[in-house]
Amino acid sequence: MEVVQVLHMNGGMGDTSYAQNSLLQQKVISMTKPITDEAITNLYCDTFPTSLTIADLGCSSGPNTLAAVSEIVKVVDEIRRKLGHKSPEYQLLLNDLPGNDFNAIFRSLAGFQEKMKKQMGDGFGPCFFAGVPGSFYGRLFHAKSLHFVYSSYSLMWLSQVPEGLDGNKGNIYMASTSPPSVLKAYYRQFQTDFSLFLKCRSEELMAGGRMVLTFLGRRSEDRTSKDCCYIWELLAMVLNEMVGEGFIEEEKLDSFNIPQYTPSPFEVESEVEKEGSFAIDRLEVSQVNWNAAADDDEVHKCDAFKDSGYNVAKSMRAVAEPLLVSHFGEAIIDEVFSRYTEIVADRMSKEKTQVVNVTVSMTRRECFC
Amino acid sequence: MEVVQVLHMNGGMGDTSYAQNSLLQQKVISMTKPITDEAITNLYCDTFPTSLTIADLGCSSGPNTLAAVSEIVKVVDEIRRKLGHKSPEYQLLLNDLPGNDFNAIFRSLAGFQEKMKKQMGDGFGPCFFAGVPGSFYGRLFHAKSLHFVYSSYSLMWLSQVPEGLDGNKGNIYMASTSPPSVLKAYYRQFQTDFSLFLKCRSEELMAGGRMVLTFLGRRSEDRTSKDCCYIWELLAMVLNEMVGEGFIEEEKLDSFNIPQYTPSPFEVESEVEKEGSFAIDRLEVSQVNWNAAADDDEVHKCDAFKDSGYNVAKSMRAVAEPLLVSHFGEAIIDEVFSRYTEIVADRMSKEKTQVVNVTVSMTRRECFC
Repeated sequence: MEVVQVLHMNGGMGDTSYAQNSLLQQKVISMTKPITDEAITNLYCDTFPTSLTIADLGCSSGPNTLAAVSEIVKVVDEIRRKLGHKSPEYQLLLNDLPGNDFNAIFRSLAGFQEKMKKQMGDGFGPCFFAGVPGSFYGRLFHAKSLHFVYSSYSLMWLSQVPEGLDGNKGNIYMASTSPPSVLKAYYRQFQTDFSLFLKCRSEELMAGGRMVLTFLGRRSEDRTSKDCCYIWELLAMVLNEMVGEGFIEEEKLDSFNIPQYTPSPFEVESEVEKEGSFAIDRLEVSQVNWNAAADDDEVHKCDAFKDSGYNVAKSMRAVAEPLLVSHFGEAIIDEVFSRYTEIVADRMSKEKTQVVNVTVSMTRRECFC
Repeated sequence: MEVVQVLHMNGGMGDTSYAQNSLLQQKVISMTKPITDEAITNLYCDTFPTSLTIADLGCSSGPNTLAAVSEIVKVVDEIRRKLGHKSPEYQLLLNDLPGNDFNAIFRSLAGFQEKMKKQMGDGFGPCFFAGVPGSFYGRLFHAKSLHFVYSSYSLMWLSQVPEGLDGNKGNIYMASTSPPSVLKAYYRQFQTDFSLFLKCRSEELMAGGRMVLTFLGRRSEDRTSKDCCYIWELLAMVLNEMVGEGFIEEEKLDSFNIPQYTPSPFEVESEVEKEGSFAIDRLEVSQVNWNAAADDDEVHKCDAFKDSGYNVAKSMRAVAEPLLVSHFGEAIIDEVFSRYTEIVADRMSKEKTQVVNVTVSMTRRECFC
């Protein structure tokens, strides 16, 4: 499977689209906003640039795409008004893999810009947008052309399914029954990918430039921690069940593994330090309920676990469907997610189900090369 | 009609797509290549930039999209090799209106870049691509961020249908039966749009930057010259015929006008001089047969006017269908182009049918502001 070709969120605006099922990712963006705000504030106040180039890596397509960058721009506009400065020119670069639905983003831009203008009032902008297709595990932009890099819920995706996962039978991700060789293979791929990511961004960011990255991650150093693996384990259960009933061939399942790695804060920190171009300003962990529509208390008060299961399964479908279709074909998809909905609702009614976010904020060091 | 929302070439790869029906536009790109080559050569040799930002305005979606910019890059690579220089980093910015099929371009990029790398050998690039949606009758890029602007067969499209065309009954463009007020309204719109275009580009191009623009145009100062109006007049004939037969309401036809202006070299020159930011290096006129697949002699030798008419009508459909659909609805489109094919084939068998291109090459003057 060529991840670059296959991986993308479900396009369009339909019932199973990412655009309609990305509430969790939206909640993560707003939860981590104080970290982003601090970084962009410091960047602006250190240099007062007349033009400001901001890249969102893994922007996807939906309400979150423009929300994330517009929040960053709003912060800058507020400070520059307080200080009585002229607005910088903004260049907003939206990156994702070529399978992303860029047409949908571009067609929503006119309305979005109109709204921004109204909200921000006179003297704001101009604001230029561009779509940049390609893998962030390679260079995407001119040398020293970026002021600020933002990425939320994208960097846990690996550039490829790690090699050496033969022993991972019955699983589709790291799991408690995965042999150590599988866990090592996943970790090595993360190290390779993330250090390449850092190297590329270190070339593209100007000295003093900032970067705020949020991973789907885990708290503990145990790679098979429930924090990160449980939601995939439930999907594996469904697929195994369907192998048992003859809907899916066993070999087909054995050769399927999710190209994702959910790192711990320590693992993120290690790679940043090893690569050396960035100084870490903040490294924080947060958590969010599987069903982002409800907060902690509500989840335990309300009986609507069926609805919750349905919402969570749809979120997962919006994210994972293209990967599943590319490996198993389209025919099984509805059945997979119908079963997955039930199993997820059942677990949510019995236990507290959360995902963990690891956010790192860093500054590009001066380069003396 | 909001031109920004409606105007785009037919997307996808189907039989009526622009991608499959843009041979004429391709021929124009290659005919005007010597002018483009000269401009990019002079630009490179004047400054030897280590990074080179090139924008194609109105890039559309199809084989021409990447062909145009890649030819420009090839010229630079050849010179820098001869001179023993390191390759600059290229940033290629592909602009079109938001209705353009950017997804199709982005999905073809991986294969294209692979091919480029093979063709150009070691030491080439890197080459970064971005899609920039929006009207070129407004700012699209950072101030002073561009080295080279290229645009072929896009600038004859106006930002809007001119106001004051009430008297243009029975016509859909400037025609010999149009009253002078209509011709003036079209010209005024061209002046407004093109001078705004020049102003925006003058802000975006750095001093010494170059711009090569090719318009669908005309030779003579007569605005209703056959050079530019005939192909639309034939479409108007079809639409009038269908009004007569009750397929289209007369008022519907009377309120339809094409948002295009096909300028003379003198009109282009006048606007450039009036705006003042650019020095004209070259201003040339060329012509190409309606059926670009055949050259001059072949057209008169071959009897296959049916095929030619079919090809020309398909080219026009790929370009004009979205405009027609937005005004008349989808139901009549097949019938319109079936009749148009016949009428075009008939005329091609009886007369020499050509379109005229006006190409202007210019340099951004030093700015002392």
